[in-house]
Amino acid sequence: MTHAPAHDTVSSPFEGILPGAPLPYFLRNGEGEKSIVFDTVFDILLSADETEGQYGAFTTIGPKGDRIPAHQHPTTHEIFYVVEGAVGLWLDDQADYHEKRVLEAGDFAFVPKGIVHAYQNLATSKIFGVGTGGFERFFHGIGTPTDSAEIPTRPYIPPFEQMLAAGQKYGTVFLPEFSFRD
Amino acid sequence: MTHAPAHDTVSSPFEGILPGAPLPYFLRNGEGEKSIVFDTVFDILLSADETEGQYGAFTTIGPKGDRIPAHQHPTTHEIFYVVEGAVGLWLDDQADYHEKRVLEAGDFAFVPKGIVHAYQNLATSKIFGVGTGGFERFFHGIGTPTDSAEIPTRPYIPPFEQMLAAGQKYGTVFLPEFSFRD
Repeated sequence: MTHAPAHDTVSSPFEGILPGAPLPYFLRNGEGEKSIVFDTVFDILLSADETEGQYGAFTTIGPKGDRIPAHQHPTTHEIFYVVEGAVGLWLDDQADYHEKRVLEAGDFAFVPKGIVHAYQNLATSKIFGVGTGGFERFFHGIGTPTDSAEIPTRPYIPPFEQMLAAGQKYGTVFLPEFSFRD
Repeated sequence: MTHAPAHDTVSSPFEGILPGAPLPYFLRNGEGEKSIVFDTVFDILLSADETEGQYGAFTTIGPKGDRIPAHQHPTTHEIFYVVEGAVGLWLDDQADYHEKRVLEAGDFAFVPKGIVHAYQNLATSKIFGVGTGGFERFFHGIGTPTDSAEIPTRPYIPPFEQMLAAGQKYGTVFLPEFSFRD
């Protein structure tokens, strides 16, 4: 990073990592704003602050694990680009469309707003993600800050209240009762 | 791809590859709208049509080669995420800031609108890119369609007029006289 922060968020553990304005910057692999969410680490590389609200970008790295709960984003278009590993992805529009695929390195999925989805690391996996600007810090909302870019040695299990609050703030609706069709 | 196209662009070689509307879809590695530009292949994975204009996404794969000409995008925020290889990236704001880095796997750069930039594959490299919605098909504008996702065996050298026309349509200004500072 070469720019001073253009905002002055008080007491953020991430202050100064991203410029907070449309200024150029570089991040080495593993640099960025990092949070542990369950057994994975999310690394925010770009936020709405840099793109005039257009989009944000992040990576997530995690071990083979459980399927994350079904959820939807009412206002966020999201992409999954698998860098390494194998990721199961379930999609359902609650009408005519439902599909499940296993994505491997180089595979891509588009999850537009409103689509119910869930994913599961079927092996140690790294995903590059992009979402509508403002969504990206949801992963800080449901996580806990970390300086390490490695797969967490100690998972962080967010309290249910934290998940709900982050979902409300960043546009994620959890659907714990949802059952994906075969 | 599982959706019929929502638009009816006549005689596009890419028709039906992307849905053209905010509908969910998957692409396997190497699927997408592909064009040869010089000695590289660009694969458009997502366009403004799917994201309500927010952003588009693409990959490019190419061999070690020459630096592409200096240029800027007056309205496009662009990211570079290196998936494999080594990519030299030059940035210059024509004022206080100029920087050059070599990006390797996992490294990231943000190139906001207006920043003069150029890049060079220092080895066979794959880059995942994202830009402000509408920019992504610039690579079709300056290229020629292909069905192959491999590094081209025969480069496509766009005529200068084609480059200028694509630049005008998709917001790319070439600066052939520009000299990056050391």
